[in-house]
Amino acid sequence: MAREATDGAARPLSTTSVATPTKWVYLFEEGSASMRTLLGGKGAGCAEMTRAGLPVPPGFTITTEACNTFYSQGKAFPPGMWEQALEALKTLEQKTGKRFGDATNPLLVSVRSGAAFSMPGMMDTVLNLGLNDDSVLGLARLTQNERFAQDAYRRFVQMYGRIVLGIDSRQFDEALDAIKKSHGAQLDTDLDTDALKEVVAAFKQVVERETNGKPFPDPIGQLSQAIMAVFSSWMGDRAVVYRNANKIPHDLGTAVNVQTMVFGNMGGGDSGTGVAFTRNPSTGVREVYGDFLLNAQGEDVVAGIRTPMPISQLNSVLPDVYRRFTEIADRLERTYRDVQDLEFTVERGQLYMLQTRTAQRTAAAAVKIAVDMVREGVITQEEALQRVQPDHIVQLLLPQFDPTAKLQAVRDGRLLVTGISASPGAAYGKAILDAGRADELGSSGEKVILVRPETSPDDVHGMIPAQGVLTARGGKTSHAAVVARGMGKPAVVGAEGLLVDPERRTIRVGDRLVREGDWISIDGATGEVFLGEIPSIPPKIEEQGDLVELLGWADQIKRLQVWANADYPRDAERARAFGAQGIGLCRTEHMFMEQERLPIVQQMILAAPDAARTDREVARLRAEVEDAPSGRRSEIERRLKQAEIQRDQAQAPFVDALTQLLPIQRGDFKGILRAMDGLPVVIRLLDPPLHEFLPDHEGLLLQVAELRRNGDPASELADKETMLQAVEGLRERNPMLGLRGCRLGLCFPGINEMQVRAIFEAAAELKKEGLNPKPEVMIPLVGHINELTRVRSQLEETAQKVMQEQGVRIEYKFGTMIEVPRAALTAAEIAQAAQFFSFGTNDLTQMTFAYSRDDAEGKFLTRYLDDKILAENPFQTIDVGGVGKLIRMAVEDGRRARPDLEVGVCGEHGGDPASIEFFNEVGLDYVSCSPFRVPVARLAAARAAATSKAYSTK
Amino acid sequence: MAREATDGAARPLSTTSVATPTKWVYLFEEGSASMRTLLGGKGAGCAEMTRAGLPVPPGFTITTEACNTFYSQGKAFPPGMWEQALEALKTLEQKTGKRFGDATNPLLVSVRSGAAFSMPGMMDTVLNLGLNDDSVLGLARLTQNERFAQDAYRRFVQMYGRIVLGIDSRQFDEALDAIKKSHGAQLDTDLDTDALKEVVAAFKQVVERETNGKPFPDPIGQLSQAIMAVFSSWMGDRAVVYRNANKIPHDLGTAVNVQTMVFGNMGGGDSGTGVAFTRNPSTGVREVYGDFLLNAQGEDVVAGIRTPMPISQLNSVLPDVYRRFTEIADRLERTYRDVQDLEFTVERGQLYMLQTRTAQRTAAAAVKIAVDMVREGVITQEEALQRVQPDHIVQLLLPQFDPTAKLQAVRDGRLLVTGISASPGAAYGKAILDAGRADELGSSGEKVILVRPETSPDDVHGMIPAQGVLTARGGKTSHAAVVARGMGKPAVVGAEGLLVDPERRTIRVGDRLVREGDWISIDGATGEVFLGEIPSIPPKIEEQGDLVELLGWADQIKRLQVWANADYPRDAERARAFGAQGIGLCRTEHMFMEQERLPIVQQMILAAPDAARTDREVARLRAEVEDAPSGRRSEIERRLKQAEIQRDQAQAPFVDALTQLLPIQRGDFKGILRAMDGLPVVIRLLDPPLHEFLPDHEGLLLQVAELRRNGDPASELADKETMLQAVEGLRERNPMLGLRGCRLGLCFPGINEMQVRAIFEAAAELKKEGLNPKPEVMIPLVGHINELTRVRSQLEETAQKVMQEQGVRIEYKFGTMIEVPRAALTAAEIAQAAQFFSFGTNDLTQMTFAYSRDDAEGKFLTRYLDDKILAENPFQTIDVGGVGKLIRMAVEDGRRARPDLEVGVCGEHGGDPASIEFFNEVGLDYVSCSPFRVPVARLAAARAAATSKAYSTK
Repeated sequence: MAREATDGAARPLSTTSVATPTKWVYLFEEGSASMRTLLGGKGAGCAEMTRAGLPVPPGFTITTEACNTFYSQGKAFPPGMWEQALEALKTLEQKTGKRFGDATNPLLVSVRSGAAFSMPGMMDTVLNLGLNDDSVLGLARLTQNERFAQDAYRRFVQMYGRIVLGIDSRQFDEALDAIKKSHGAQLDTDLDTDALKEVVAAFKQVVERETNGKPFPDPIGQLSQAIMAVFSSWMGDRAVVYRNANKIPHDLGTAVNVQTMVFGNMGGGDSGTGVAFTRNPSTGVREVYGDFLLNAQGEDVVAGIRTPMPISQLNSVLPDVYRRFTEIADRLERTYRDVQDLEFTVERGQLYMLQTRTAQRTAAAAVKIAVDMVREGVITQEEALQRVQPDHIVQLLLPQFDPTAKLQAVRDGRLLVTGISASPGAAYGKAILDAGRADELGSSGEKVILVRPETSPDDVHGMIPAQGVLTARGGKTSHAAVVARGMGKPAVVGAEGLLVDPERRTIRVGDRLVREGDWISIDGATGEVFLGEIPSIPPKIEEQGDLVELLGWADQIKRLQVWANADYPRDAERARAFGAQGIGLCRTEHMFMEQERLPIVQQMILAAPDAARTDREVARLRAEVEDAPSGRRSEIERRLKQAEIQRDQAQAPFVDALTQLLPIQRGDFKGILRAMDGLPVVIRLLDPPLHEFLPDHEGLLLQVAELRRNGDPASELADKETMLQAVEGLRERNPMLGLRGCRLGLCFPGINEMQVRAIFEAAAELKKEGLNPKPEVMIPLVGHINELTRVRSQLEETAQKVMQEQGVRIEYKFGTMIEVPRAALTAAEIAQAAQFFSFGTNDLTQMTFAYSRDDAEGKFLTRYLDDKILAENPFQTIDVGGVGKLIRMAVEDGRRARPDLEVGVCGEHGGDPASIEFFNEVGLDYVSCSPFRVPVARLAAARAAATSKAYSTK
Repeated sequence: MAREATDGAARPLSTTSVATPTKWVYLFEEGSASMRTLLGGKGAGCAEMTRAGLPVPPGFTITTEACNTFYSQGKAFPPGMWEQALEALKTLEQKTGKRFGDATNPLLVSVRSGAAFSMPGMMDTVLNLGLNDDSVLGLARLTQNERFAQDAYRRFVQMYGRIVLGIDSRQFDEALDAIKKSHGAQLDTDLDTDALKEVVAAFKQVVERETNGKPFPDPIGQLSQAIMAVFSSWMGDRAVVYRNANKIPHDLGTAVNVQTMVFGNMGGGDSGTGVAFTRNPSTGVREVYGDFLLNAQGEDVVAGIRTPMPISQLNSVLPDVYRRFTEIADRLERTYRDVQDLEFTVERGQLYMLQTRTAQRTAAAAVKIAVDMVREGVITQEEALQRVQPDHIVQLLLPQFDPTAKLQAVRDGRLLVTGISASPGAAYGKAILDAGRADELGSSGEKVILVRPETSPDDVHGMIPAQGVLTARGGKTSHAAVVARGMGKPAVVGAEGLLVDPERRTIRVGDRLVREGDWISIDGATGEVFLGEIPSIPPKIEEQGDLVELLGWADQIKRLQVWANADYPRDAERARAFGAQGIGLCRTEHMFMEQERLPIVQQMILAAPDAARTDREVARLRAEVEDAPSGRRSEIERRLKQAEIQRDQAQAPFVDALTQLLPIQRGDFKGILRAMDGLPVVIRLLDPPLHEFLPDHEGLLLQVAELRRNGDPASELADKETMLQAVEGLRERNPMLGLRGCRLGLCFPGINEMQVRAIFEAAAELKKEGLNPKPEVMIPLVGHINELTRVRSQLEETAQKVMQEQGVRIEYKFGTMIEVPRAALTAAEIAQAAQFFSFGTNDLTQMTFAYSRDDAEGKFLTRYLDDKILAENPFQTIDVGGVGKLIRMAVEDGRRARPDLEVGVCGEHGGDPASIEFFNEVGLDYVSCSPFRVPVARLAAARAAATSKAYSTK
């Protein structure tokens, strides 16, 4: 059925071709820039230049449609195509006065593939097609260099044999080696003209042998086979794999460009070849920029064998050519409304344009060019935003190594290892192997790199003052990676081969030893780790006026708000300076981790289980008393009294810890609410499993074993044993799926209450100062409406109480993270108790895929990406098909239940441009990302709004 | 809006009541059994008996509608209700010739609540309402016992005060104590008539005091307040909580029954009271069964103060009454078409029926009664299936402790601790603290109970020959619980307070010490653990002919097939005998765990990472060679050759292990396929994280530390270090979300290939024997279609190869577990490569809720259930709102993509009746559960089919 339908759909085309034969071949003068789909990028470029009257060597393009028909008709040229090609070839002969295969004035052509998008795996250029034993004489005459002509001939046969006929290069190499040996030649250049003629003959034999006796084809045969080869390369393995990976459809087809050869290597001072840009692709400055090489063919410039002159020097060498070229460059830029990358050849004083295409550019150039072109009136602001890639912004805002110094380091053999690039930016400092020392040294102003086997929340206090982080284990979403990205701090993680030994204070890489305190440098963008210090160049954000202007335009176009994830006032300030419109995630656990607070937090944790257990026992007995028959009542009352005493004893250290933490947390929240005065700040209640705040289990186990063995008389053993017992009590097989998030609040209600009290007291104090704090309390890891209802009603009570005590009204919200699949699935229910949803896409991705982000990258995710099982890392770019389906469902169901529901995302994906496009499409209100990604997200949000008409503002 | 609508909806009723006043009160003779909703269970029962002409003391029922109107009108009697009640009371007076409150021939009544379903928290019976200082004299005259009358009077005042007026019982107790003291009485029975009169007066004073000076009401006031109290109890805290928890709507309301008192304690030999069943509720035998007590009131029988006579003896004492009663019993059973639980009173030779209701019964009785009644033509087969609860089947198939011996053990103080009931059944044996010894002793025929802190797959070989399993940690879905249930073996887990010390070989409970080898007994149904041996009674399945017949009917009605989860041939045989129609889950990891295989499996695991890594390196270099420019080729070829050597070295131990495992696995599969000849067997490829097959990390760590310290010279340290390194290499923070399932197959393809080869070779051999094996290969933990496509295409190749080698065709399928949320979300894609889906609801629940089943129960799930945050344990009963939504979605999307997709469930839920109802509704093809639950599932599937009309077969 499907097959028939396709055939049926194809029929009208052939029917038309009976009436008006299909046009498969376009002379350059028949095409234009707008015909890119039909003629491919190269063909359309040459056509446009020809149409504009520019000097382009005559040529023609066989359409992408011809390629598609070639495949649909069992790999045969479409009827009439070859005749049209021969017709076009005749036109080239007429235009140039040369003849294909002629011995006196031969027409030589290049044949190139040219799809709408440039693509690896496609057939490359075949030059000098049309050479045979006759026309090689003509080439010798034209270049007045017989050796050159024979050299070109043997190169052509080999190139043709390899590219068009698919013959293994080694066959030619062996034949060449034999001849070199027989002539006693060391190098190719030792061969004279006659020897080269021998090579040509030998190469032709190779072709005949490898093609089962078919002699090397004549020029017409060359052309037909070359076209066939280009078509065939479209379905070559690598091209297909590439298109699959990049989701490019397979039915675009490739065009074939056949173009008259011109020679920049005709000898004399008036031939040459060049490549140039209409503006400086490195700085964006408006100047023609490039290289020119006298007496050379196109490849010579690129190959870099001879040193070319800057294009500006052409003005003194060939002033007419230079003037004509700059005029053309200017004209092409205006036609294409973008910077062009041009190839040209000068043949005996005559300028020929060979290619024009949109130029690649650096981040700085991209921004400058886009903004300049708006100022020049060439493009609109919206177009300017499409010209700058989000990655450009990332680059502009990061410190980078001085390229020369880095190159030198590589040459000096100081590259130690390459790990996973986890958080971009360059950093150097002393390698320090524990968080405590890193904190100490870093805080005293020393530059340190924290190096750990892997990090845990225990290490955060050492990461804060460090220049960068290096770990031996973990992937792009490991703790180290996530925290470092959040801090905008360079990080290399999962550097396998790195043996970090915190006890011996050494790092081993193979047989190299780095001692603690040695200087190292890390490049978080490439994953490279160097021995020694490589100076880095800091970013100059304030100075980047063009960028600031561009982002201003982005803000006008984007629909999504951009918020930031920030745990500290200084991060919030930075985020606001970068344009953040709120804080989408303030994690309170990092506050708990700071060194001086940790002992209080640990006291709280050690006391919590007993406090909760005894509290419940009291409640249970109270209920029992009420229900009890009169006979048993007094006995139960006695037990109740006992239980109350035990409860009070158990509560004491717990309450004491909370009492100490309250003013500290209040201070934290006051700082961040002050920094974001007037803007919303989403504060997440304590979320991680409590064991993260306690010492490592294994370490304790070994210590206790050691102390027991040594018969430690002091209280150290008892303390460690108590701690070990607590750690074991909190241990879980899968902490990610364990006692954390709102489950903590439901098991140990006191902690949440303290936090909410701190938030509202902080807000109240600011309110009294005349500020306008807007706290939004986020309850994490909700999976069932009942969890949210219980926690929220308890906390609303605390909030009301504080506002009453303080005598102020605060604008606030209560909401939840949607990070458990069940929350997304039951969003309609959950929205009834939530004023906002914030998608925690990290965890949602973990649960939806059943991937632990701490384990997956090292264990199998990298492999999945290598093997293309997954096209993208779902922790970086949102998985639209699975996780995205849950998000879409939750947004729709949630809004239906509560039309004014505020919906955002606070996972890592909030700063990822591809994900932002999706978030824009599903109608989120905001994305929240790390402060350093705010500018990126602003641009990405604007680009998404512009492409998605459904949501574009105007 | 909603409120208005409700009011509006209520209006027609009141409008009608103007035309024909609403009837709020029904005399018993005006009702019938079918009016249960309006009259409640008790009211409808009395009405039915009255209608049938049976001797019921006259009475009337105030409707549930009156109760609802009472609430909708601000807690006031509906207009006209009280008048109708008084009217009905007058009718009672006329019928009985007695008068309410009369001093000579007083009418006394009982007042009881009676909702459609019996419900705790509702108001209990008030007897003898209508007593006052006048009527008490009448009562004394009627009973010819003044003391009795006064005692009844003081009891009535107290009961009325407590139940109707809500006065604290202690108030009355204190007053009574004071009078007892003043009379020098020790016991209540020491008080004479006058003292009792004092008590009445004192009690009346208590009432007056506690009700702010209102005197004790007169009979009419008593009646009106009692009715009000019944209505109010409907919205009492406990009743509301109960209805919420059981999802009973709050607008059912309760009825109020007012009935003439009759007196079985009128003295003489012709009064008495009894309770009886129309059949034996314990055995199901068709005989009137119950107790009768001469000269007693209703409560006396239940209270058990005096020993009643068996009902059959009544035949000799009061033969007329007996004959009359058995006739009535028979008639009522026929009317209700089910066994009735009857209450009756004989007042001076006159039989009065007080209550009839459907009788509770034991499991054995339920089956026998249901089957007998079908044989008697009383009920249909379909009805019979509704009369037997799935839990009844569970009970019938389990060994249970001899009740007398168990009671004695409790009395002897041998109950050690009560843990979580994880797998029902009773077992006793020697407590053994490690799997090795349990295996050894158990295999040699000794009865052992394996006692562990918790279990891991390492312990499975010790569980197999054990009678039962006891762990100190873990919840209902812990490893021990799941495996034990799978084996149908009794287990108690999470017995907190149990300190298991495998090193010292002791178990401590508080100050009690159990040494390894001591006898213990566990009851997996109750969680009880006893010291010593309690004999258990084994189940007699074969002998249960009635059950077999009943399940045969179930099979005819059910739509769902019932398959079983079985890892071993013996389990499969058992399952088939229980009626399993296939194996839905054969876990291959348990096969890997058996002691003699474990070393081979460990060799495979230790070798796998290097084998895979070197293999990939070879593949990478091969690709590089192909793409390499000729100049670099030889260098890369050299590296390739080296890599190939390394690969071969690394592969050797890996391939060797697989080669050893192949024949073993082939034998495993042959056994299970043979047992299930002709039926499908779903075999899951290796699934668990590999570290589960290696020694415990902590143990190793401590051992290595110890060996290092002792400067161990032998190779033991080196071996342990190698093992430790391997264990650390495979360690994961969240193994549940890590390298397991199909990820193993994608990282270490050799394992899957070996397994599939073993499956197909086994099937081929059986085929040649003339059997019909139907293997279905299940690829676990798929989350993305690409995973399935890759694994399946590789394995299809192996399957084809084996079939070619063996020269046979095998009927087989490839499919996947749906256990990762993403798989359910993308079921339409996944169905393209899967011939079957099997919902792994254990893992799907874990991921959807983000609950680790290993951690949740101990940490917070029990609490969630206690606090009613979750109504049910989602690991026991499927969460319809969340997990169920995914399942429904996946079934629909999967079937749309592949209409003949086979869909089943193999999680724990497959054996849960409530879940089976859901699986039936969403249209699964089968449920698969542990062999012992197959009969339960057959019944549940039939009940589900019968209730769900959409899917009922006829």
